[in-house]
Amino acid sequence: MKLYDMPLSGNCYKIRLMLSLLGKEYHSVNVDLKNGDHQTPSFLKLNPRGQVPVLEDGDTVIWDSTAILIYLARRYGSESWLPLEAREMAEVTQWLAVAQNEILYGLARARAIILFNRPWDMQQCRETGLAILRVMEQHLQHRHWLALDRPTIADIACYPYVALTPEGGITLDDYPAILAWIKNIEHLPGYIAMTSISP
Amino acid sequence: MKLYDMPLSGNCYKIRLMLSLLGKEYHSVNVDLKNGDHQTPSFLKLNPRGQVPVLEDGDTVIWDSTAILIYLARRYGSESWLPLEAREMAEVTQWLAVAQNEILYGLARARAIILFNRPWDMQQCRETGLAILRVMEQHLQHRHWLALDRPTIADIACYPYVALTPEGGITLDDYPAILAWIKNIEHLPGYIAMTSISP
Repeated sequence: MKLYDMPLSGNCYKIRLMLSLLGKEYHSVNVDLKNGDHQTPSFLKLNPRGQVPVLEDGDTVIWDSTAILIYLARRYGSESWLPLEAREMAEVTQWLAVAQNEILYGLARARAIILFNRPWDMQQCRETGLAILRVMEQHLQHRHWLALDRPTIADIACYPYVALTPEGGITLDDYPAILAWIKNIEHLPGYIAMTSISP
Repeated sequence: MKLYDMPLSGNCYKIRLMLSLLGKEYHSVNVDLKNGDHQTPSFLKLNPRGQVPVLEDGDTVIWDSTAILIYLARRYGSESWLPLEAREMAEVTQWLAVAQNEILYGLARARAIILFNRPWDMQQCRETGLAILRVMEQHLQHRHWLALDRPTIADIACYPYVALTPEGGITLDDYPAILAWIKNIEHLPGYIAMTSISP
């Protein structure tokens, strides 16, 4: 298996984390965005969106971090990570949507403004991010995991950019339930840290 | 079944369309955002994000349009709409991600700036939207449907805000493959139009 990868990308890290939790070996290929590696014809053939991560597994090529999580869970995981029953699958998917919406366009973008000097509106990113932190904090008050009574790909999808929130200038000190959930993930067998997640 | 609904929302329309394609009866409850209906304690109990659509099916409550599509496909559809095989499921999910990312934050937001006077950056929305239209146009050159050789929830998720693109000031005239794909969807048995989609 080959992962087109970038060390500082939280979306790539969630795939590395999932592969590690599943105990799967893979080969990481560094895509240098500064060098324009993601805009070459050969990379655009793999992913027409020109983004990392991309997973190559034999002749299967999957782009998009959420789609890759679903692929890995279905191909190498079990229904524990992604159940097939309609209601349970939808409950997992709700939080996959949060990862792709408020967490990406709020928390991750706030971080990218600071770290990578991206041209987005910090106030809008903060508002979007803080709104979902409040929702998550309340939701996690009496729960260990986001979607079900066990870890699922919902937790893996949401974790990186929530854990990286302080790099976007937003403290997690006021969110004890979120901090406890972060600890739960960090205690999963096979957990690996992202080097840039602040201690 | 009860759908918390708003006529002008493309995300609500995609659920109405899916329910119609599946031939399912339901009761529509209008949520008046101008009146703050989405911020009442009773609504926030259904959906802590305070957004439409929300689907109530017996004691099952699902928020988020993508999660609702997945729920309906698993509960009332068949694997035709959402296959369970790893690679095929991931291929559907890739386009669900596009619907939640570039289509929502590009095309749908451009429309919301014009129709609802929302405070977003039109140039960024246009750039994001045009980039994904180019990707879709190329992808659809020799295909009838986005993900597989048949319609799936990927098509239903992407269709509304792509078809509504002209309401955001972006013409689809330069995208003949996208226009042909739109026609394919409009010919599905059970198709219903969204009244605000321009003729």
